[in-house]
Amino acid sequence: MRINGVEIEDTFAEAFPIKISRVLITAVTEHWALEAAREATGFGTSIIGCPSESGIEFIADGDETPDGRPGVYIQICNMGYKTLESSLLYRIGQCVLTAPTAAAFNGLTEAEHQFDTGKKLSFFGDGYQKLVDDYFGRTIWKIPIISGDFIIEQAMGAVDGIAGGNFYILGQNQMAALMAAEAAVDAIRRHKGTITPFPGGVVASGSKVGSKYKGLKASTNTAFCSSLRDDGVCMLADDVSAIYEIVINGISRQAIEESMRAGITAACKIPGILQISAANFEGRLGPHQFELQKILA
Amino acid sequence: MRINGVEIEDTFAEAFPIKISRVLITAVTEHWALEAAREATGFGTSIIGCPSESGIEFIADGDETPDGRPGVYIQICNMGYKTLESSLLYRIGQCVLTAPTAAAFNGLTEAEHQFDTGKKLSFFGDGYQKLVDDYFGRTIWKIPIISGDFIIEQAMGAVDGIAGGNFYILGQNQMAALMAAEAAVDAIRRHKGTITPFPGGVVASGSKVGSKYKGLKASTNTAFCSSLRDDGVCMLADDVSAIYEIVINGISRQAIEESMRAGITAACKIPGILQISAANFEGRLGPHQFELQKILA
Amino acid sequence: MRINGVEIEDTFAEAFPIKISRVLITAVTEHWALEAAREATGFGTSIIGCPSESGIEFIADGDETPDGRPGVYIQICNMGYKTLESSLLYRIGQCVLTAPTAAAFNGLTEAEHQFDTGKKLSFFGDGYQKLVDDYFGRTIWKIPIISGDFIIEQAMGAVDGIAGGNFYILGQNQMAALMAAEAAVDAIRRHKGTITPFPGGVVASGSKVGSKYKGLKASTNTAFCSSLRDDGVCMLADDVSAIYEIVINGISRQAIEESMRAGITAACKIPGILQISAANFEGRLGPHQFELQKILA
Amino acid sequence: MRINGVEIEDTFAEAFPIKISRVLITAVTEHWALEAAREATGFGTSIIGCPSESGIEFIADGDETPDGRPGVYIQICNMGYKTLESSLLYRIGQCVLTAPTAAAFNGLTEAEHQFDTGKKLSFFGDGYQKLVDDYFGRTIWKIPIISGDFIIEQAMGAVDGIAGGNFYILGQNQMAALMAAEAAVDAIRRHKGTITPFPGGVVASGSKVGSKYKGLKASTNTAFCSSLRDDGVCMLADDVSAIYEIVINGISRQAIEESMRAGITAACKIPGILQISAANFEGRLGPHQFELQKILA
Repeated sequence: MRINGVEIEDTFAEAFPIKISRVLITAVTEHWALEAAREATGFGTSIIGCPSESGIEFIADGDETPDGRPGVYIQICNMGYKTLESSLLYRIGQCVLTAPTAAAFNGLTEAEHQFDTGKKLSFFGDGYQKLVDDYFGRTIWKIPIISGDFIIEQAMGAVDGIAGGNFYILGQNQMAALMAAEAAVDAIRRHKGTITPFPGGVVASGSKVGSKYKGLKASTNTAFCSSLRDDGVCMLADDVSAIYEIVINGISRQAIEESMRAGITAACKIPGILQISAANFEGRLGPHQFELQKILA
Repeated sequence: MRINGVEIEDTFAEAFPIKISRVLITAVTEHWALEAAREATGFGTSIIGCPSESGIEFIADGDETPDGRPGVYIQICNMGYKTLESSLLYRIGQCVLTAPTAAAFNGLTEAEHQFDTGKKLSFFGDGYQKLVDDYFGRTIWKIPIISGDFIIEQAMGAVDGIAGGNFYILGQNQMAALMAAEAAVDAIRRHKGTITPFPGGVVASGSKVGSKYKGLKASTNTAFCSSLRDDGVCMLADDVSAIYEIVINGISRQAIEESMRAGITAACKIPGILQISAANFEGRLGPHQFELQKILA
Repeated sequence: MRINGVEIEDTFAEAFPIKISRVLITAVTEHWALEAAREATGFGTSIIGCPSESGIEFIADGDETPDGRPGVYIQICNMGYKTLESSLLYRIGQCVLTAPTAAAFNGLTEAEHQFDTGKKLSFFGDGYQKLVDDYFGRTIWKIPIISGDFIIEQAMGAVDGIAGGNFYILGQNQMAALMAAEAAVDAIRRHKGTITPFPGGVVASGSKVGSKYKGLKASTNTAFCSSLRDDGVCMLADDVSAIYEIVINGISRQAIEESMRAGITAACKIPGILQISAANFEGRLGPHQFELQKILA
Repeated sequence: MRINGVEIEDTFAEAFPIKISRVLITAVTEHWALEAAREATGFGTSIIGCPSESGIEFIADGDETPDGRPGVYIQICNMGYKTLESSLLYRIGQCVLTAPTAAAFNGLTEAEHQFDTGKKLSFFGDGYQKLVDDYFGRTIWKIPIISGDFIIEQAMGAVDGIAGGNFYILGQNQMAALMAAEAAVDAIRRHKGTITPFPGGVVASGSKVGSKYKGLKASTNTAFCSSLRDDGVCMLADDVSAIYEIVINGISRQAIEESMRAGITAACKIPGILQISAANFEGRLGPHQFELQKILA
């Protein structure tokens, strides 16, 4: 299969179940909503070494937010609901409550799982916090802070989502692969339901499950490292010299498929891209499989 | 004391000792160096609830970096050297090793304390990592990754620094205080040696040590909350309606003093700013004191 | 009439007819589409002294562009169709043809007026330009350039639009007014059909028609200058100390009304905003009137 | 000659004399100084079709500006002092006077040529403008505007400079060439004295002097167009598939040389770059020659 001349390998992305919360951060301007969102989702690339996986989902305008201010939807992901609740408390409490003019709303009001994050954080008000039953249709806590009042919705929802949806962009050189990765992330960011949690949405160092060193859960994906050609472990075609990976988490299988489709299609428009592949590990990472050619059919 | 008509209160900022590492991240362009730096320093506002305090110190051009590429200095701060070493491993390993075209250099080569972070992270190379004795004058590890090679300096230095340097910007309204805070952060970011770890460099919800609720270490600084006037706990003058705080960490007392001076001076230029104050807690936070009027004399 | 406590004055914005072209610039990433758009619309605030009025209308994702790449819609405005055609030639020829990876498509394919801008610019190809009848459904010229091929649609449409839709944001201080202006521009930028051509979308120096100096067409709007209180010409209430103006051009009366509504509503959410007004000049500027209270009813 | 393996062709850049003014724009924050600077320097790539060539030179912090606020130095360039004066009046009058919180200072106080731009623009004050002899050491006009007062220095200096310093970046593919161009611009922007006036600092469509069509002054540089290989006019090596050009204007020969050196060195670090060349036209463009190998020696 080829898109715009770029070969789509007959392979699949392997992914695993994760719990996802979705928070809508609003602020006085888009600039300040983004500042809050970036702080709240930083240090959130992979649960291998980060307290959670997290990222910006999409930017919402005032017509789509309860308080009519610009907003940014973020996702926070953990392996279980308990650690997820803890992540929500710390990331919102430390990075949104502290962010100028920011408010935090529930991004998954329909979800079965609802944490009382707003209530727990309201104790920061030292007794002066107030419950408001109907703030633009939401039940919120108003917490007095030195810059005004912090508004946070009482409940924050969470769902069973999927982490590790992915594809590899194989380039003639590093810069072609990188620009294609950026174009892919641009395309994905316009779709709802997914995040690309790595720096700038891109993974420079795709890994394989396991390592020759005991105790390490992951190591460099040697078969895809062009600088290991002479070592005999690189399985890449001769003309490939660099690869970037896009990792996608999402609240549903369908959301991930749509983002993979949008991202791969965008990457295939870039001159110097030779092939699209994906990472899988014989089921050692997880049960979800996303077949590239099926998604793009 | 008045600067540009703005009263500088006769008070001091109370701060506490912290351990600080400083990492120089370089990349192909300033854009990508910043993406890596932002991911690596996110979720890093306060050690009360973040795995570390962290932030961007300043942007360095190619003349100031070992490999001649654009760079960003970041600081990572923890209460002890042991937790700091762990923070370095995870933040660099998850957020810089994974960032497109990024490299990580030691930002404190002269410090007595040196971690072997580069060596530890090199095991990601699964046996194919290589030590290079003289890479632009530094001892580095070259780790093969799917996008090329990741370069990381063998050693990362750390020093005894100070956290919690601060000042309060009291405004006629919220927006005046916020713009003054942004102007202050702009001024501080041009100075070396310090970071402002909160979202966009600004704290919206300055806290006091302790709480009426058992187990909470901090709570809203009620005396500075204008919305608590009717409750009788607000100690602000009548014309003050909003406050933003700037919190500064730094590798030395002098660096923090210079940044406080630059930041306060910038804030005092903004129309609608009424007073500059600072947060202190009778020594319950820490032993360092920064007297505003002395710093500005 | 009050919105969120802010008084909406019973007055109207006076506007005038203008000719508007709309160009869709696509590029490899949103970043590069924006770079091209910013260069192409710069030096384009007011036809009093700029070669045209121009600005960014909105950002389009790949689902909305002919070539599936990220895009930015811009508007270019002149008093007559002849000067507008000239503006198109120069702004596209100098700022889009020269911009990395940029392509230029017709943003008003249905308009009665169609210029052959693409054809005229194709002569840059020095004989090697080629007409392609169906490029994603458009008739385009492919012009060989040193970085690849430049794609430009043969025809560029234009319509009779309106310039000078406006409102004034009266603030307790300068920073409140400025943040409200930024919030208003954020809201307007999400609406299609209009631009806010001034720097960052905001006018710092609203003018009146005429001057005491012969030959000057416009001068500072003295009645709204708080620093002229002692001179007896300032007509502002005592508590107003600064004003920013939002000027809106649009392809239809309806588009301008929607953007005014969105912008004013956003501005009224900002603490420190006292009143919304508008600029009118007894018909000396133009025949179009936008009554604030009607628009917001 | 080779740098980092990239061949530096034994050729030279041909450039021509131009008149340059330099204006320092300060504002409340770096963000707003940049907004003003971008508007004031837009539609300013080449004097072939733009009212002037213009661009951002560098960002200055508060320690380097008269009023202690963040600032941006811009350059405006025209063929003669008369057209340059007109450009200054219109670009500052329409794009800086109108920009929120902006002030305009003389960036070439030592130059022999001094225009009275500030005085001319002061008439916007409609009689209420005031001359202030010593405003942070400068003679300025204070013009009342609706957002406060606009400050502009009485005199604006200008010098005999050079336009058209340039180099070509030849890449294995378009994206490698583009990222190298961006890296070059990053490096150049850190140097004082020069601007790169094209979109994002980069030229996608390098031209040659003259055209087969009468009346056109410039046309695509066919010898460097890889898509014209089959037409027999492309003189590129087989492995080159795309080129971007960096054009540099500067206030002195030395400033241009330093920026060329910094830019070329940065570009040569990028994987996929094959050669650096430059554009020259047998003296038909101008008398200045910049030999690549000499500059880099």
